[in-house]
Amino acid sequence: MTAQFTHVRRVRFADTDVAGIVHFSNFYRFMEEAEHEYFRSLGLKIMDTRPDGTAVGWPRVRATCTFESPAFYDDLVEVDVNIVRVGVRSLTLAFRFRRGQQQLAHGEVKTVFCTCATGGKFESADIPPEIAAKFVECPPNRA
Amino acid sequence: MTAQFTHVRRVRFADTDVAGIVHFSNFYRFMEEAEHEYFRSLGLKIMDTRPDGTAVGWPRVRATCTFESPAFYDDLVEVDVNIVRVGVRSLTLAFRFRRGQQQLAHGEVKTVFCTCATGGKFESADIPPEIAAKFVECPPNRA
Amino acid sequence: MTAQFTHVRRVRFADTDVAGIVHFSNFYRFMEEAEHEYFRSLGLKIMDTRPDGTAVGWPRVRATCTFESPAFYDDLVEVDVNIVRVGVRSLTLAFRFRRGQQQLAHGEVKTVFCTCATGGKFESADIPPEIAAKFVECPPNRA
Amino acid sequence: MTAQFTHVRRVRFADTDVAGIVHFSNFYRFMEEAEHEYFRSLGLKIMDTRPDGTAVGWPRVRATCTFESPAFYDDLVEVDVNIVRVGVRSLTLAFRFRRGQQQLAHGEVKTVFCTCATGGKFESADIPPEIAAKFVECPPNRA
Repeated sequence: MTAQFTHVRRVRFADTDVAGIVHFSNFYRFMEEAEHEYFRSLGLKIMDTRPDGTAVGWPRVRATCTFESPAFYDDLVEVDVNIVRVGVRSLTLAFRFRRGQQQLAHGEVKTVFCTCATGGKFESADIPPEIAAKFVECPPNRA
Repeated sequence: MTAQFTHVRRVRFADTDVAGIVHFSNFYRFMEEAEHEYFRSLGLKIMDTRPDGTAVGWPRVRATCTFESPAFYDDLVEVDVNIVRVGVRSLTLAFRFRRGQQQLAHGEVKTVFCTCATGGKFESADIPPEIAAKFVECPPNRA
Repeated sequence: MTAQFTHVRRVRFADTDVAGIVHFSNFYRFMEEAEHEYFRSLGLKIMDTRPDGTAVGWPRVRATCTFESPAFYDDLVEVDVNIVRVGVRSLTLAFRFRRGQQQLAHGEVKTVFCTCATGGKFESADIPPEIAAKFVECPPNRA
Repeated sequence: MTAQFTHVRRVRFADTDVAGIVHFSNFYRFMEEAEHEYFRSLGLKIMDTRPDGTAVGWPRVRATCTFESPAFYDDLVEVDVNIVRVGVRSLTLAFRFRRGQQQLAHGEVKTVFCTCATGGKFESADIPPEIAAKFVECPPNRA
């Protein structure tokens, strides 16, 4: 099955650790980068300001990643993105990491549409219909 | 229920992001720090060299985290650690993040005992009995 | 010569890189952590809000570091802090990194006292006398 | 004056901090990324293995950066690279950060050609003539 979006990311020196591989925490950063580029491709912004001045965003409520094979310095990692579920207030994205045809890892992130007051006060809100309409559920086929 | 180990971590400026909170990827780093301090408390090392010169370690196979409430710059975050499962070759740890009594997040990491050849070639191996004996299964009570 | 303050920092797995050492960019983070702990020891805050609601802080204008010997995973690095110069609007701090008696690196950071409007608009301001009074110039002796 | 090489880098969410700007430590990572892409453009590798199996690399001996104006989430930052000096064993690179025509920061990194034994034991060595021949001294004009 084809991914809905693919983000290509060069592994940087600072992404690696003393085990000689990409530090596992950076896979979550790569998922976020892929998510943001996917939003950009849809004409959407991760952080935005409504006409009334309210800041809105998509904080994470859960993120998981399964590591199958390490990624190394200088690898060109491809991160496939698929929308798993569009909820009333939440969005679930699936990610697959590949180096060419070799799958390195896969993960899932659930985010919630929120208004953001200063001081990190987030409150969930319904995804506006014009935004929700951009997303098509298309779970990845990992079989 | 009491945690088997608690790691206290000051949130640093570089841990935060433009949303004004700790970047979600850093919760995975905090889990790793707590895991390593827990290993230290048991007299164990995360990276070690066997008498025959083989390097051994504990790469991650899966890590998940659920974010309930944000952590902020300068917070003193307490990370509770519990052993969920001691397998033949794997170890599953549960983590709970608190600021005082307020729970901020909880997560789980599954690691596998491995020999590590140069070039990031990991091969799983049975956890040596003297190491396995240090761990007592004690799943956290989140009810 | 004695340091005015010393911050002790355990090197974490995520601080290292594939060269097997602490990534050089993390020395700047360690300097910042040491600076913030030094501020705390003086009863000062790096980020603060004035009675009129204005946010104030200390953004960096220059940071330099010279690397003499690598730091490794699990090292306990001691970061010595000394005030080099207290200007009307700026503060210059010197840092020395040690593992026991072995010097690993030394650096210098110049920060400027600023008011911070939303959107990252910083404007320099005179250091309030009650804050300036906390700092004593005491350049480190590297001879 | 024209830069010898320009690396374009999208600012990522994880690059920012609670002050709403790119954390200063990440400018050093951006310099490294630009340096590595510059090496790639010359057909060179930052980490390499000689025919006799010796690992060679370019650890930093000094890095400095002056911050003039903040960079923000989602900015496309252009990092200009120029060779300042080609020494017998060292290389000094200058960097200029721009958002369009606005200069954000400038910095300099001195690296040393080294052989790298396991355990982070670096020993400086003469830059091989076929590598040195790739570099042309061309200090940036900041006037």
